[in-house]
Amino acid sequence: VDAKHLLLFGASVITASLSGPATAETTQEQYVQVAEIEIFPAQLDQYKAAVAEHIATALRVEPGVLVLYAVSDADHPTDVRVFEVYRDTDAYNSHLQSAHFLKYKTTTDKMVKSLKLVRVVPIMLGAKAK
Amino acid sequence: VDAKHLLLFGASVITASLSGPATAETTQEQYVQVAEIEIFPAQLDQYKAAVAEHIATALRVEPGVLVLYAVSDADHPTDVRVFEVYRDTDAYNSHLQSAHFLKYKTTTDKMVKSLKLVRVVPIMLGAKAK
Repeated sequence: VDAKHLLLFGASVITASLSGPATAETTQEQYVQVAEIEIFPAQLDQYKAAVAEHIATALRVEPGVLVLYAVSDADHPTDVRVFEVYRDTDAYNSHLQSAHFLKYKTTTDKMVKSLKLVRVVPIMLGAKAK
Repeated sequence: VDAKHLLLFGASVITASLSGPATAETTQEQYVQVAEIEIFPAQLDQYKAAVAEHIATALRVEPGVLVLYAVSDADHPTDVRVFEVYRDTDAYNSHLQSAHFLKYKTTTDKMVKSLKLVRVVPIMLGAKAK
């Protein structure tokens, strides 16, 4: 592992390099949030399938969707968190209006007991590319 | 954007491809957690610098550290979350014993008001590589 295999996202800076020296670009408007979602127990498996499909589609078709990490609390599986990074506010707004997001919302509407969106500011977003 | 520019991490499956068709490998023991950390307000800037340095070092020197995303709540900046993905439990334990982690813990010990580690299970971890 060497430097060229790192993706380091700093606050308002994305450094991304897949095959060469690291380069940096300023992204003033990167939009990052954490969704805290409680799912009704009886619908958990269906919810997981729906959110997994939604994430795969969003990553594939939306250039401005950078990260969607959905996880379930190991001790309280109905507590789901989604860590979300969009290129900028426009990309987030565009995501909210996409056909696949609207489908996800409709499909999961009755499965979701509560939803809290927490806007966050990156301190350091570090991820390794293989 | 096409399929070769996606990193999709499924539950117990990592699909990662940087320059060719997607490949999949089973990772039964991928270790994922969310750290919820409250920082004393007077030490917040120092804490941010310490955690950013720690993350950069861990990504650079530890092959088993895959993701460390540290963010600060936009409305309550002293509430910090770190989203953490390790290759497996061994990689996590190795991380806990690394010189840079021990330095980070010592440096930040008096800055941290509370710490909660939440073990989580991936539903879908999707991230775009550029």
